[in-house]
This record gives sequence, C-alpha cells and structure tokens, in this order.
Amino acid sequence: MPEPPDFSNWSCPLPLRDYPTIVMGHGGGGKLSAELIEHLFLPAFRNDALANLGDASIVPLTGTRLALSTDSFVVRPLFFPGGSIGDLAVNGTVNDLAVSGARPLYLSVGMILEEGFAIASLARIVDDMAKAARSAGVQIITGDTKVVERGHGDGCYINTSGVGLVTHAHEIGPARVQVGDIVIVSGTIGDHGTAVMSVREGLEFQTTILSDTAALNVLVEQVLQAGNAAVHVMRDPTRGGIASSLNEIATASKVGVVLEEKSLPVRAEVRAACDLLGLDPVYVANEGKVLVFVAEERAEAVFNAMRDHPLGHDSTIIGKVVEQHPGMVIARTAIGASRVIPMQIGEQLPRIC
Amino acid sequence: MPEPPDFSNWSCPLPLRDYPTIVMGHGGGGKLSAELIEHLFLPAFRNDALANLGDASIVPLTGTRLALSTDSFVVRPLFFPGGSIGDLAVNGTVNDLAVSGARPLYLSVGMILEEGFAIASLARIVDDMAKAARSAGVQIITGDTKVVERGHGDGCYINTSGVGLVTHAHEIGPARVQVGDIVIVSGTIGDHGTAVMSVREGLEFQTTILSDTAALNVLVEQVLQAGNAAVHVMRDPTRGGIASSLNEIATASKVGVVLEEKSLPVRAEVRAACDLLGLDPVYVANEGKVLVFVAEERAEAVFNAMRDHPLGHDSTIIGKVVEQHPGMVIARTAIGASRVIPMQIGEQLPRIC
Repeated sequence: MPEPPDFSNWSCPLPLRDYPTIVMGHGGGGKLSAELIEHLFLPAFRNDALANLGDASIVPLTGTRLALSTDSFVVRPLFFPGGSIGDLAVNGTVNDLAVSGARPLYLSVGMILEEGFAIASLARIVDDMAKAARSAGVQIITGDTKVVERGHGDGCYINTSGVGLVTHAHEIGPARVQVGDIVIVSGTIGDHGTAVMSVREGLEFQTTILSDTAALNVLVEQVLQAGNAAVHVMRDPTRGGIASSLNEIATASKVGVVLEEKSLPVRAEVRAACDLLGLDPVYVANEGKVLVFVAEERAEAVFNAMRDHPLGHDSTIIGKVVEQHPGMVIARTAIGASRVIPMQIGEQLPRIC
Repeated sequence: MPEPPDFSNWSCPLPLRDYPTIVMGHGGGGKLSAELIEHLFLPAFRNDALANLGDASIVPLTGTRLALSTDSFVVRPLFFPGGSIGDLAVNGTVNDLAVSGARPLYLSVGMILEEGFAIASLARIVDDMAKAARSAGVQIITGDTKVVERGHGDGCYINTSGVGLVTHAHEIGPARVQVGDIVIVSGTIGDHGTAVMSVREGLEFQTTILSDTAALNVLVEQVLQAGNAAVHVMRDPTRGGIASSLNEIATASKVGVVLEEKSLPVRAEVRAACDLLGLDPVYVANEGKVLVFVAEERAEAVFNAMRDHPLGHDSTIIGKVVEQHPGMVIARTAIGASRVIPMQIGEQLPRIC
C-alpha cells in the first residue's frame, strides 16, 4: 500500500481520486473531509436534506420538522481537563441539533469498546453521559454496544445520534446570510483543542486549560428569542475551529467574511499553549461555543442576550459579512494588514473529538 | 491487567462487578451484554423508553409516536458472500425500526475509518449502503466521518441510527405475549453468521452460503396488516440468533417458549457448515429474518401473508408460548425429549455484525 502524501505543506485542493487510501485528514473537518462528502457520500446518498450539509438535517414529519444529527467520538485521551469523551458525545450532538434551530429531545448511544477496556473507565464515561444528558434536558433512549479485539480499537469510541423538533419559525442556514451580517462568537476560542493537546503532549502549563465542553441549547434558544428572523445561521465550531466553520459558511453563502484579528477572544494561557504547540487558535476545536450570524439591526439584542447566559458571558463581536471576496475569510491584523484564513486541507489536531 | 476468564463452559449469570475489563462477550448479545445494560446503562440513563429494551425505542412526539434505533457494525470481513458491512448497516437499523412497529424513514451514518483504508473499498461500502437504502425506501440524511490511526480500527466501522413513525394502532412488545401465541420465523436460520464464519475461517463448502441480509420493513407491514392486534411481539434475531431473541422475549414476557426442534428451518449446507464449525444454528446470527409472536386465531392469516412475500417464502411455525417454565426456551427433539435452549453467556461468533 503506497504511503499517503504529507499534507502539512499543501495549499491546494486535492481531488479525492488521487488518494488511494484514507489519511488522518479525511477525518479532520477540512478540505479532505469535504472531498469525501462531495465526491463519495453526496453522489451516493443524494437527497435534499443531506445536501444542505448542516450540523443536523431537517426533514418534515407529520406537520412538524424533525432534526436528525449524528457524530462519532474518538477523542484521545478519553479523559482530559474539563471533561471526557462522555461529555463530548452528549454535548456535541445536543449542540449540532441546537445550532440547526432544533430543540434537542432524544439521543441514541452506540459504543465500540476494545477488549480489555476497564469497566471502571466505562462506568465513569457512562456517568458523564448521564449527567450531561440531564444537564441538557435530553433523554438517552436507546443504545448498542459492540466489542472489538485488542488492537482494533482504542478503549472506547462513541456514536451519539439525536433527534429534535424545529420550533423556530424561520429558516436558519447559509442561504439566509446577507452582506452586513454581524458575526458573534459566544466566548473564548481554542479551549477544548488546547486542553486535549496539552495533556496528550505531556505539556505542563502554569494554568491548567480546561475543555469548554457544554450544552448550548439554552443559550441558542435565547439567541433565537432575541434575534428571531434576524438570526441567519449558527454553527458550533468544533473540528477545524472557527476558521473551518466560517469558511464553510462563506463558501455556502457566497459572501466574504472579515474578522478583526485583535477582537478574537483567546485566553492568555491558550494563546501561550498554542504558541508552544505551533497551533493557530482559529483552527483549534471548541466544544461549547456557538458562532452566530445576525442581521445588524438585531445584533446588539442578540449580543446582550448571549452575554446574559453563563455560557455566553464572554461573547464577542468578531467580524462581519462583506460583498468582497465571496467564499473567503479574511482577518484584519492589528497593524491594518489583511491575511487570508483558508480552509485547512487536513487536520492539525487528529482525534480531538 | 488480569486475563479475562474463559466463558465457554460457564452456565451461570456473571455479575458485572467481578469483571474488571471488557471481554468480547460483552458485545455478543448474550448474558454479558445484558449485564452491561442492566448494571451500567439502565441505572445511569434511566427512563421509560430505554427500560423497554426493544430493538428501537418509541417516544411521543407532537401527537405521533417516533421510533429511534441505533446500531454499530464491526463485522469482519467487511465483504462476505451475499453482502457487506454497508448492506448490514442499513438493513440492520431498518429492521430494528420495522420490528418495533415503525415505518423506517430516515437514517444517519457515522463512520470510523482506519488510516490506510482503501478509498475504493469505502466507495463499494457506500454504494452498498445507497442501494440498500433505496431498496428499503429510506433516506440517509446526515452523516459523520472520523479517522483513527493504523492499529486503532479495522478498516471501517459504521454506526447507523434511524427514525421511523409508529403508525400501527396496537402496542407491540413482550408485555402483550400470551400463552397460546404461535411463534413464526420468516425463513431459514443461521445463514448470515455461517456465511461470515465460513469466509473468515477459510472453509470451503460445496455450496457457497450467502448472508440473508435484507430489509424486512415491507414484510413486517404485511404481518401487521394480516395480524393487526393479534401480532404481539416481533424481533429480528441477529447477534445470538433466534435462541437469544426467544430467551429475551420469554424473560420479559414471563412465559415459556416451546420449539419443535425438527421444524426449525435450516439449510442443509448451513447445517453442514455449523457441524464443521461447532456451531448450533439457533445461536447463529440472521440479518434478514423476523420472529413473530401472534395469537393463535390470526396465526394462519399471518403465516400466509408472510409466505406471500419473497423474503418470507420459507416462513415456518416453529413453536408456541406455554404457561410452564416461564422465562425459559425449551426445544422438543425429534425423539420426544426436551432440551433447554439457554441464553448464552458471551458470544460464539465475535464481530458477526
């Protein structure tokens, strides 16, 4: 089997057909992930709901709108400062439903356990899932457990899928983004990825960085109440960080996004850790943050509503939507220069969620 | 880490707390699986829908009843005579919804790929999934792909979760089983597990045994139309075969089940392969069969309806529900003797689905 190419220095899109095998980057949420979806999954499974490529899919169901979302979690290590794979698995699917405008209701849990995994660790993970579900107000109503031999897993992989009801009257999605929209992020960026990487790399920082894993459904409800039809799109910027989410939205909406670099909220300890690890916080995963695109006239109301919620206390206006450079995200630096924030090819942080 | 005990000769329940680590049997659908559920998942996640332990969970949703089901697939090898992990992943979740009385509508797909997996193989699997979904009349509307490093997976693991609408007016579940109910299976047993095991073990038989993987939703609709309120419970007997499904129902229903051993439909080549492999067909997985418990007065109508469907052409009445030996499954042998068909502890066929 030929060795996969080294993607670290590539800067152009890579057509799927040139790659005979799966590489880590295919799971990174960047261009390689997008190519798998575009060239393989979409043509095979084609339908309108899938083609929207939101965090959840929304389909009609007996007069209501049902949202369905799925996510598999392979984070390494399973326990990290601020959380565990159990918290991530519940909060991640709750958040995918919430940012799609749905009220999360029910989750399923599919576990793939490796032979030899400690039952005490499994019990901790299950306990974390139960607490996270209670905290988010969702019920875990069905599950499945498979076991694979030693050397064919990594302790515990978890899939959660979730259903919710869309009660918001207005469509939420990239199609509704307009020039002039204000971009708000609900707090500091890069916390989760940096927390996981710092324990993985055995780095010690003066301050322990905690994952921000949290369920955003109540915060998102407040955003929708405050902004109503003016809320155009929301995303929870996990794999690939805010850079990937903003690029996805810019591409799908055919608009440009301009960020004010100095306004990006990054904890000092996260910035220090990112410098040490060679990471850019805009590409680092968040697990308890939401990006909101809102029409300018309601931006202040939404911003204030976000600030009123404990999980949105550090909400910050980070940029706006412009007519120029459609499909691109540009950051204006402190000295007035501009730099492109491209979609990454692969993944700088494998197995971060 | 202590070595897990050898379960092959155990015949008593094993309390979870005595086992410090996960063993293959925890994924086998037998007693060890049941203990994980009883001692770990149920106490943590407790809610009524989960406690029913059906193939899918049914919950109220804006005046309708929604069914949600999840299953992870780790079958080895990924391709086998008669199907692939792609077929299994779609049909398995479709069937879990169908036997719960729901019309399957939408599926999600979560993939965990191993670095180095051939994209050509992935494309075949995705194609199989798309064909199976079209054939079953369901849509795959959302998905997620993660990649793990070499040595932490086995090519491709797939989770599918599915939602459906329960339109059948009557409850279907073990609580409705009554003494006198007739037990029908929709065709020959043991085909899937034997097909997978024979390629895995490199055995060659004169006739190639094919997996029976198929979507049962239309067959099940015909069962419900013909039997209506007289259909008391259905199961698709996958992991652990019909023996596990019948034991689960007997335990949950607090009734006895008597099988006529000579009536069990087993292909000659499957029986020969099982003899070679040391397997009992009642414990071998099926992926396109349904067990139906129906009140005696409607049994003939249901049986005829099943026979009318191509996937039920070999439907057979295999037993009935009795007052004696509640919670137990007994087979009457050809010479008039009786043998207990116990729930297995672990799994005679690891990674069969």
